[in-house]
Amino acid sequence: VITTEFIDEVKASILSGNDSFLNEKVAVIEPADIAVIMEQLTEDEGRYLFKLLPKEISTDTLTELDEDIREELLETLTTSEIAAHVDEMDSDDAADLVSELPETKQEEVISQIKDQEAVEDIRKLLTYPEDSAGALMQREFIKVNQKLSVLRCVAELRRQAKDVENVYTIYVVDQDDKLVGLLSLKSLLVSTPNDTIDKLYNPKIHRVKASASKEEVARIMQKYDLVVLPVVDDEGKLLGRITIDDVVDVIKEEADKDYQMMSGLSENVESHDRIGVITRARIPWLIIALLGGILVSMVIGTYEGAISIHPEMAFFMPLIAAMGGNVGIQSSAIVVQGLADHSVNYERMVPKLLKELVIGFLNGLICSSLIFAYSYYMYESFELGATVGVALISVMIFAAIFGTFIPMILHRWKIDPAIATGPFITTTNDILGIIIYFTIGHIIYF
Amino acid sequence: VITTEFIDEVKASILSGNDSFLNEKVAVIEPADIAVIMEQLTEDEGRYLFKLLPKEISTDTLTELDEDIREELLETLTTSEIAAHVDEMDSDDAADLVSELPETKQEEVISQIKDQEAVEDIRKLLTYPEDSAGALMQREFIKVNQKLSVLRCVAELRRQAKDVENVYTIYVVDQDDKLVGLLSLKSLLVSTPNDTIDKLYNPKIHRVKASASKEEVARIMQKYDLVVLPVVDDEGKLLGRITIDDVVDVIKEEADKDYQMMSGLSENVESHDRIGVITRARIPWLIIALLGGILVSMVIGTYEGAISIHPEMAFFMPLIAAMGGNVGIQSSAIVVQGLADHSVNYERMVPKLLKELVIGFLNGLICSSLIFAYSYYMYESFELGATVGVALISVMIFAAIFGTFIPMILHRWKIDPAIATGPFITTTNDILGIIIYFTIGHIIYF
Repeated sequence: VITTEFIDEVKASILSGNDSFLNEKVAVIEPADIAVIMEQLTEDEGRYLFKLLPKEISTDTLTELDEDIREELLETLTTSEIAAHVDEMDSDDAADLVSELPETKQEEVISQIKDQEAVEDIRKLLTYPEDSAGALMQREFIKVNQKLSVLRCVAELRRQAKDVENVYTIYVVDQDDKLVGLLSLKSLLVSTPNDTIDKLYNPKIHRVKASASKEEVARIMQKYDLVVLPVVDDEGKLLGRITIDDVVDVIKEEADKDYQMMSGLSENVESHDRIGVITRARIPWLIIALLGGILVSMVIGTYEGAISIHPEMAFFMPLIAAMGGNVGIQSSAIVVQGLADHSVNYERMVPKLLKELVIGFLNGLICSSLIFAYSYYMYESFELGATVGVALISVMIFAAIFGTFIPMILHRWKIDPAIATGPFITTTNDILGIIIYFTIGHIIYF
Repeated sequence: VITTEFIDEVKASILSGNDSFLNEKVAVIEPADIAVIMEQLTEDEGRYLFKLLPKEISTDTLTELDEDIREELLETLTTSEIAAHVDEMDSDDAADLVSELPETKQEEVISQIKDQEAVEDIRKLLTYPEDSAGALMQREFIKVNQKLSVLRCVAELRRQAKDVENVYTIYVVDQDDKLVGLLSLKSLLVSTPNDTIDKLYNPKIHRVKASASKEEVARIMQKYDLVVLPVVDDEGKLLGRITIDDVVDVIKEEADKDYQMMSGLSENVESHDRIGVITRARIPWLIIALLGGILVSMVIGTYEGAISIHPEMAFFMPLIAAMGGNVGIQSSAIVVQGLADHSVNYERMVPKLLKELVIGFLNGLICSSLIFAYSYYMYESFELGATVGVALISVMIFAAIFGTFIPMILHRWKIDPAIATGPFITTTNDILGIIIYFTIGHIIYF
């Protein structure tokens, strides 16, 4: 574990040029940990440390770094230095890094990579759209023909294995290079040399096309507990494989995105990001909420006379607005998660809305009884109590239905439904809550 | 992919007793998919389908089911039926299932399991606290002594491998059974028979103690891209291994928990849960928000006279409250995520709060300039504009600092900081926002 004290020591060593500390204490730890340290350093400090690392370690650290910090670092490296790092990377990491470079630099870097097979792999991977299975896969994998004997398969494996870091499984292909199944290392180890692969391999396997989305990949690997998933082209030919570590990142990213959307952040920000970045990520939703608040003020403004005579109407306005917002977020959060894991779908909308109606009614009944009792007792006015109570249950039922309906419609329109859980639904419910409140007040109170 | 139509067909087949459809179309698909179908069926329909499945498939389906649906199903099975399923499961799934049974049933089931090794494994696993690495691990793994030759190692592997479903790696132990490293299947495949394990194994490996938390396990496996993580006791002896599929579930669960906490749901509910469950999960936060709203109404009540004379003060109350809530959630969401991935810590609180102060000030300046301009122009009152503007920037700065401080303090007190992102922070900011608003109004307006 990287402690705050250790990072302070690293900073001090960089400042005082204490390279022996950096070589002995930092360059020997895992690249993932070095990346964590670098994320806490200034740009200059990070560059100093990076240049000091042994080649192999610095390449791995580069793949582990946060994208924005990597970008800063790459700007200070020459294209031949970048090419030397890329040359050592797995094809998926290599392609990711190249794709992050400015377009003018990309060709320059690729042209300086020595290994021609690596160049081909990178070019191939760069052709897939950013969030597809093709962009997520790596080209390193082991494949054998189904007609081989175990003995020849092991020889083939030895030859291919030097380029593949983690051999989870061996893919079995037919004479047309089409994926027909997989062979576990375990079954190979417990087989006899003269067996043929044909008899050993498992034909029941999952696969995805290169055009599948990364969400689809994550869903399949998570559902079927897979460690690695082969990627094929439209003819069923094996193109590459996706490993679970990349998918764990996708799952984490998706979850973070929904979370940040709900919290009203418009970009994926992290706490160590610079003030400008964080400020910019927050302002769009705040402006929307502000405009919503202005609309609310206009609605209330039309009841100015009523408020002068009955200022107690104003007392419960924030309560009505807040309860509508809370119920709306609760409802939409459940729907958004259900849409994400495919347990909710548009075809089943009507029963879903009816269910929300019942839930909204039950919760509304409890809350509005409480608020009726309180306001009747406190202000000795049945009319005020009735207004607040009836408005509250109406707002809660309405917000529950609205919070369910909006994400479903957005999903139907191919818009990320998570957007509905943010300040959008709170603001909308604020406005509608106040309108309902004063309308009911107008009917039974003033 | 399981379509709505297919589920309807399954339901119809169950109703009409069309067993041949169920045998030919349902019993042949993957247990993870059967589980998805069962989650959409009623209890009786699910039981009918389950009884029809071949033994092996039904056991796997049982481990894939949602916990609450599994619980319902298990209530209808005899202890000897349950024992027969448990006997076939991996030790981690077996122990999970037994731990979910009512205590009176647990002993009865364990006593009817035939395989004595399985009984020992389950008893051992049940001793670990629910959310620890020990409870997450499985006892099936392959270990070899470091002194063995490759030839004997392969023989040992063949003997052990029949009980282990996925052999990702071979653990190497010394004569005291202490974990010293790991041997990849790849290195075994490319070795020669007379090599000794001593020369082949990799001693630099990650491990966790059985007492580590599941969050710690998830963090390590995610950070270092591990597929499997060995678990050791206090002396370093190998106890079991944790596989990535279980950790993916932990990561997903954690993310869902934070998401639901933020949306004001007190339990992990899913959209297919029964109305009673969903209603119960929602009501606690609604009651808290209601009490908060009542407090707000009391605060406003003390300014009753001012509102009668200046009803326009009431127009901007919901805006002030909503903006405070939005800023508070934005700030706390970033901190909660930072705390979860260890990029934020308590020791660095002061610089973090200063940063929030600056961000709150910048965003506040933008928003309050807009609202000042609007309200000054709209109501032709400099005092009203100044009140709303100054109150807004004060509330936004305050909410930003508050939203950062509260999760950090909760974390320090070992309370899940995610609780601060829910209606809690919105409600608190509502109350404080209104107090600030009227206090400033009192100073410059009335």
